[in-house]
Amino acid sequence: MKHFTQTDIQHLERFYRANLINSVSGYKPANLIGTVSADGVTNLAIFSSVVHLGADPALLAFIQRPLGEQGHTYHNIKENGCYTINHVNRQIVERAHYTSAKFDADVSEFEACGLTPEWLAGFHAPFVLESQVKIGMRFVQEIPIALNNTIMVIGQIEHLFIAEHAIRDNGSIALDQVDGVCISGLESYYNTSHLAAFPYAKISALPDFI
Amino acid sequence: MKHFTQTDIQHLERFYRANLINSVSGYKPANLIGTVSADGVTNLAIFSSVVHLGADPALLAFIQRPLGEQGHTYHNIKENGCYTINHVNRQIVERAHYTSAKFDADVSEFEACGLTPEWLAGFHAPFVLESQVKIGMRFVQEIPIALNNTIMVIGQIEHLFIAEHAIRDNGSIALDQVDGVCISGLESYYNTSHLAAFPYAKISALPDFI
Repeated sequence: MKHFTQTDIQHLERFYRANLINSVSGYKPANLIGTVSADGVTNLAIFSSVVHLGADPALLAFIQRPLGEQGHTYHNIKENGCYTINHVNRQIVERAHYTSAKFDADVSEFEACGLTPEWLAGFHAPFVLESQVKIGMRFVQEIPIALNNTIMVIGQIEHLFIAEHAIRDNGSIALDQVDGVCISGLESYYNTSHLAAFPYAKISALPDFI
Repeated sequence: MKHFTQTDIQHLERFYRANLINSVSGYKPANLIGTVSADGVTNLAIFSSVVHLGADPALLAFIQRPLGEQGHTYHNIKENGCYTINHVNRQIVERAHYTSAKFDADVSEFEACGLTPEWLAGFHAPFVLESQVKIGMRFVQEIPIALNNTIMVIGQIEHLFIAEHAIRDNGSIALDQVDGVCISGLESYYNTSHLAAFPYAKISALPDFI
């Protein structure tokens, strides 16, 4: 086993450290966040930090990196309160990746990267036509994380659109049936295949592990 | 496409809603968090909410569910400041899943689920011997999320142990080379296979998507 201490990590070359530390949390979800500016310019950006907060109320959060000249997603969300979260699938993985380039505010990543804005249910943010799981989110709260100037952005689910064949009888989504991908680090994308499903864990029905 | 509105979601049967909403963020990382109580009882629990906060300083967060009678992980972290995050792999996926059963505080999930505590580098929390990516974490800050009584627990990386063959030249970890798995919803585990890697996205080197 290779051992890195905190001091070792601090002294790593900057890009090596970014690659390493962005890998250690494990696989990450691949989502495109869609917004629209007050001027009507649509915006789309890939995020790997969407995290489940709770089912009732249905809340999701994501981590906004320190705001520089960019941060169009964040500013649009603060301006109109609406955003969409759209799952990346195998068919659009390269186009999704390149939404992370630093486009000017007047350029739509939809157009630049060959993805199609879709307006659904009168919602004031664009969904991604090519995605098979799309979520309409209403901004609820932001929590600044002073430690490193990131921001946790929390929203509530107002609309869910899911390819019907992927919804299991118990309500869970077979993400492999919508060609879902996951991310490792900053640049690697992975296919998945179903390995196992286990029941809700009860002490009274524990397998014999010993 | 199946469409659920916010009202539809509120009126879903409780377990159906939990399965559905726990699936919509996409694939989640599978990690075991290891701690030890003041009485010396080791504790191990699976979490799917570990999220990258930043590389410099190297910070990870996870979401602690509302504290009930359980919450041994959280209380141990608050007591001694140390915890470990250990990647779940294919070989231990079933044992890892069952750490989520509601064991009493005086029972070690290591023992009950057939996993091996490992003490490394004098760190005051147990790592998982069977894991190939293990992280020693120092508690830094907790952020209560009043919306649903969850808590964001933030820590800094003090130690990293990684199977050496899985570290790429650029510092990223080939998670498939350590048999890493990901989670969907509350019960499904997925294998992965490498799909693609793309360079840092620059506008000057955009593929021709049109």
